[in-house]
Amino acid sequence: MIFTSDNAFGVAPEILRALGRANGGGVPSYGEDEITKGLTRRFFDVFEHEVAVFPVATGTAANSLALATLTPPYGAILCHEVAHVNVDECGAPEMFSGGAKLIGIGGAVGKIDPELLAATLKTFRHGDVHQVQPRCLTLTQSNEAGGVYSLQELSRLVGIARDFGLKVHMDGARFANALVALGCSPAEMTWKLGVDVLSFGATKNGAMAAEAVVFFDPELAGDFALRRKRAGHLFSKMRFLSVQVEAYLANDLWLKNAHHANAAAKRLASGLKAIDGIEMFGKVEANEVFVRLPTAVFKRMMKSEAAFHPWPNPDDSAGGGKLQTIRLVTSFETTDEEIDRFLSLVRK
Amino acid sequence: MIFTSDNAFGVAPEILRALGRANGGGVPSYGEDEITKGLTRRFFDVFEHEVAVFPVATGTAANSLALATLTPPYGAILCHEVAHVNVDECGAPEMFSGGAKLIGIGGAVGKIDPELLAATLKTFRHGDVHQVQPRCLTLTQSNEAGGVYSLQELSRLVGIARDFGLKVHMDGARFANALVALGCSPAEMTWKLGVDVLSFGATKNGAMAAEAVVFFDPELAGDFALRRKRAGHLFSKMRFLSVQVEAYLANDLWLKNAHHANAAAKRLASGLKAIDGIEMFGKVEANEVFVRLPTAVFKRMMKSEAAFHPWPNPDDSAGGGKLQTIRLVTSFETTDEEIDRFLSLVRK
Amino acid sequence: MIFTSDNAFGVAPEILRALGRANGGGVPSYGEDEITKGLTRRFFDVFEHEVAVFPVATGTAANSLALATLTPPYGAILCHEVAHVNVDECGAPEMFSGGAKLIGIGGAVGKIDPELLAATLKTFRHGDVHQVQPRCLTLTQSNEAGGVYSLQELSRLVGIARDFGLKVHMDGARFANALVALGCSPAEMTWKLGVDVLSFGATKNGAMAAEAVVFFDPELAGDFALRRKRAGHLFSKMRFLSVQVEAYLANDLWLKNAHHANAAAKRLASGLKAIDGIEMFGKVEANEVFVRLPTAVFKRMMKSEAAFHPWPNPDDSAGGGKLQTIRLVTSFETTDEEIDRFLSLVRK
Amino acid sequence: MIFTSDNAFGVAPEILRALGRANGGGVPSYGEDEITKGLTRRFFDVFEHEVAVFPVATGTAANSLALATLTPPYGAILCHEVAHVNVDECGAPEMFSGGAKLIGIGGAVGKIDPELLAATLKTFRHGDVHQVQPRCLTLTQSNEAGGVYSLQELSRLVGIARDFGLKVHMDGARFANALVALGCSPAEMTWKLGVDVLSFGATKNGAMAAEAVVFFDPELAGDFALRRKRAGHLFSKMRFLSVQVEAYLANDLWLKNAHHANAAAKRLASGLKAIDGIEMFGKVEANEVFVRLPTAVFKRMMKSEAAFHPWPNPDDSAGGGKLQTIRLVTSFETTDEEIDRFLSLVRK
Repeated sequence: MIFTSDNAFGVAPEILRALGRANGGGVPSYGEDEITKGLTRRFFDVFEHEVAVFPVATGTAANSLALATLTPPYGAILCHEVAHVNVDECGAPEMFSGGAKLIGIGGAVGKIDPELLAATLKTFRHGDVHQVQPRCLTLTQSNEAGGVYSLQELSRLVGIARDFGLKVHMDGARFANALVALGCSPAEMTWKLGVDVLSFGATKNGAMAAEAVVFFDPELAGDFALRRKRAGHLFSKMRFLSVQVEAYLANDLWLKNAHHANAAAKRLASGLKAIDGIEMFGKVEANEVFVRLPTAVFKRMMKSEAAFHPWPNPDDSAGGGKLQTIRLVTSFETTDEEIDRFLSLVRK
Repeated sequence: MIFTSDNAFGVAPEILRALGRANGGGVPSYGEDEITKGLTRRFFDVFEHEVAVFPVATGTAANSLALATLTPPYGAILCHEVAHVNVDECGAPEMFSGGAKLIGIGGAVGKIDPELLAATLKTFRHGDVHQVQPRCLTLTQSNEAGGVYSLQELSRLVGIARDFGLKVHMDGARFANALVALGCSPAEMTWKLGVDVLSFGATKNGAMAAEAVVFFDPELAGDFALRRKRAGHLFSKMRFLSVQVEAYLANDLWLKNAHHANAAAKRLASGLKAIDGIEMFGKVEANEVFVRLPTAVFKRMMKSEAAFHPWPNPDDSAGGGKLQTIRLVTSFETTDEEIDRFLSLVRK
Repeated sequence: MIFTSDNAFGVAPEILRALGRANGGGVPSYGEDEITKGLTRRFFDVFEHEVAVFPVATGTAANSLALATLTPPYGAILCHEVAHVNVDECGAPEMFSGGAKLIGIGGAVGKIDPELLAATLKTFRHGDVHQVQPRCLTLTQSNEAGGVYSLQELSRLVGIARDFGLKVHMDGARFANALVALGCSPAEMTWKLGVDVLSFGATKNGAMAAEAVVFFDPELAGDFALRRKRAGHLFSKMRFLSVQVEAYLANDLWLKNAHHANAAAKRLASGLKAIDGIEMFGKVEANEVFVRLPTAVFKRMMKSEAAFHPWPNPDDSAGGGKLQTIRLVTSFETTDEEIDRFLSLVRK
Repeated sequence: MIFTSDNAFGVAPEILRALGRANGGGVPSYGEDEITKGLTRRFFDVFEHEVAVFPVATGTAANSLALATLTPPYGAILCHEVAHVNVDECGAPEMFSGGAKLIGIGGAVGKIDPELLAATLKTFRHGDVHQVQPRCLTLTQSNEAGGVYSLQELSRLVGIARDFGLKVHMDGARFANALVALGCSPAEMTWKLGVDVLSFGATKNGAMAAEAVVFFDPELAGDFALRRKRAGHLFSKMRFLSVQVEAYLANDLWLKNAHHANAAAKRLASGLKAIDGIEMFGKVEANEVFVRLPTAVFKRMMKSEAAFHPWPNPDDSAGGGKLQTIRLVTSFETTDEEIDRFLSLVRK
């Protein structure tokens, strides 16, 4: 019963089998193989747009390399104040960009508040040498606090970014979960809104270690390819990275997995909602459930076989510590049995 | 018939199977799993020394992160002038170190000439602020030009480095091939000589994408762990990286694979040596064979199904272009049939 | 009538004369001259402590080089959220450190709130590779918002930094003004409290372009010297930089100038306080005066010959825009006549 | 009798006086003053071309900031193997560029051999991600080994750079000396040949600490301004930097000083040539004289009051150590008396 993180799960069998299929000697290295080359076409089909695609193994690499391509060293990257790139990557965007500055913006459930974004951007004067120069906005869809931007919300934020001359990056570590939640097309959630570059996540949703950086403006691609190599993120036996992405897209595996994870979250949430004394915290939009347990229940569960993380929530201490918020993450592997077992443990 | 590079080959079946074995949900992420933790003990056994071990996916990452840990931004890294880190990694060590300088030293078959090393080091004045400060020597064992340092040669170079206060890094992308060639123990080829950090390669010799950075002085480990994360080289589902290394070491797979590759090189070399008009170029020590073909044969072979790379050799043009040097790389997958087919194609 | 910034003023005649005195050929370059070497002794006398001293030409260089010496690329620098290093130097500390992260802490009048500092530091886990690692606290004494830390306040902040293993840097661009305000000794305001490195400013208080980075722990000096050269901040004709600092210290010029500037601020403040409709904003501790003018007066003054900057103050708009806050900076050159003229203009 | 370096000399009286003239309070800071703004017009007049001009205090800053503006982190900068930027600046270009690579090219008297330059550039494949990408050629006019490129030589090197898509930077630390040596116009030695950016040196030829970075393509200027600030090289009291450059250009002081220094070198050289047993080493083109002294004379002179540097010359040891090469640098302050005294000391 693992509800700690999507990272705690394994590899989808379809993807594991694909690794075996890709094996066999005599294949050009460093991405000159047919599997890697074929990805451009796959993404063209999925996104209905010309793309340049670069597989990398980690989300940190995908995000940081993308941001460094969009932002000069004297630039600023606007992000949510608790965005993964700002608080969980040990300064990776700063390293890859040569010292650009991340400017954190507030907003509920990990989503940037458009008023605050506009107000912050107004404090910068274009070309004023005393200030870093805002060049890029990065949006997480969906984020670690369970938030999923609606298309309207995305559109407004991208519009503000455009008004101030910024490029837009989307951190899509949980892109599939967000897409399924919104029920829109990949195109509608990205370039049609004005997103320039997408970190298309696969690891959290069934791959072993694979993300794809997708440029909707291929002009930026040459620069990125050099940065990827220079950062040690170009694999020699590249096909084993690319084939994960290929298998992830094949037969809509990515969407099936995300549907499964999101549905599991909903099932878990409705089960919890029905239990006396438990409060939901936020909406369940993708594959994350936030609930507030009575402290006694919380303590009992922490000692149980169920694995999950407490979630910092100022309301808990404000409320005198009677409730404790926790985060439960479901995945493509989460089973109904696990959910039911978890619910019965809580009920006890 | 692939003789282009060790990178063109696939994954050893033992390692591919290990990936499947490691699968299954509910495992702590980011290296807190048992497989990753167990590597310390495995390397302790292999190297007969306390170690700190960090798996990463590429040789570029292994080398650059190791060098950045040993060298401040104002430092210099001494390497062979055609070392991979100097000419084939798009400036990765410069990026990871924050702009340290690589100083290339000459020497036959990719091996640093100790006289030149000492002479170069003497041109630097300790603490002279106008100069970068030499802090690290990196040695490739074995290298892309087919060279394998003898223990005596290594000892001398490490001794010079020590005399000038440098740390020593070994680029062991082909560590197993070198070890088999010398017939010594891992300890004898590393820390017993004074090597501080080793990039222990597995990818070229049967892994999918896995190297291990091995510190014989674990004090440097904390710094490295932070640098690895910051560079996007810490995997969330770490066990799939670690299990490759585990399977590579299990039952001496790494040594068997290297034995196979080196033996294939020897078989290929003796076959070629027996053919009229072909000249050997350098010794065959590990898994690389360099030969000079008559130009007509070279041209015919380039059009054949055999894949290999021409190798720049000033003697070829000096000799009027009658001979053309090529490099042939064998691997754990190279078969006797392939070798024989290659030889018969040359003989035609 | 210039009250915009200390930077708008000129060079003290004593310092200008010193430049002429230092002239004449045949002097060792790059800091090997006697004037530069003599600074160590001067600072030893002033600070009553062993020091390593490095003159540089700008405050940006002094602060950024000092911070880079104390903070690795994966480190974090704690500072006030509106500290000069955080908002006015175009990301200089990020550049010099190779991408360290500045963490802004709130607090009134530009002074870090100790509770917030401690709370922020508690959110970091030592060695957690997902987070930048706090390594350095930087305190501005006195700051651009007019704030001067008391010795007790400094002591408490330094104590918290020490508890979390941080080094402490003091941005002393207005060190003399703060010292005069507190009436303590240089030692009492720095190393006696636990400050490790001081950016000792001279430019704002009468030098042409000269600051001195003072290490109370000379062990860090070698590293700094290399970083300074590498950043282009080692002057070839170094004596002209050093002699400014020498003249600044000679005959207590630095203290006289600061006394003059602080006294001018007090005179200006009491004049303004006596005028109907004007509100003081904050205390006048060093050489900065913040007042709130009736909007009509503000508009009139902006068109007058008096030069000064409006100061962002949320209370102004909250109060319906009836008052507008401005900042007035006095200097060693500010005359009583200027002050009186300014006051009479306001009174009109 | 100082012949060690142009850096050992002082400040021209015209420039020292100009500092005084620029003094007086109430001047906009950070380069918004009239003196700084006027420099654009002065350089327009001198170079007969639209320019963007940025004063900085050191040659290291001028060169490194210019190179960083022209070269991305994954780029390569082609330079002479013993160019100041490559061997005497502690890796400054690497720092400012975020880790670009300097590729040293050989050639006599510090001048890049065009054949070697073209041959080196041919080894790079455009867009090959394994290699840094050549983006910039930097030429030193005149250099530390006494070499001055003829216009024909410059034209050929710039042409090669252009053919390979490189930008061209000129390190003009001794620009005036070279100009006087060639007897051409500033335009003829720079943009008319295709030079993009010039580090226009003043410090070595009479300024206190002042260089100007001159862009002939003003489009690159915005980027540079931000980089300058970020590197701590924007002065708050900027006028004192700019006025040095202004005075340097006024009444052709820069050319007069260079004429004086070059003439002194010629006088010194002909005096030495007339002495038995002394051999000239290279031509005397600008303000540097290289001669080979009999070892006994060399030893005697090293103990004398004359200050100069020995110069590494392999011919000396090859010749059995009978001769020792030295470098003598003259300046705008070198007097005939000093030269004559030096010559009589040698003759003794």
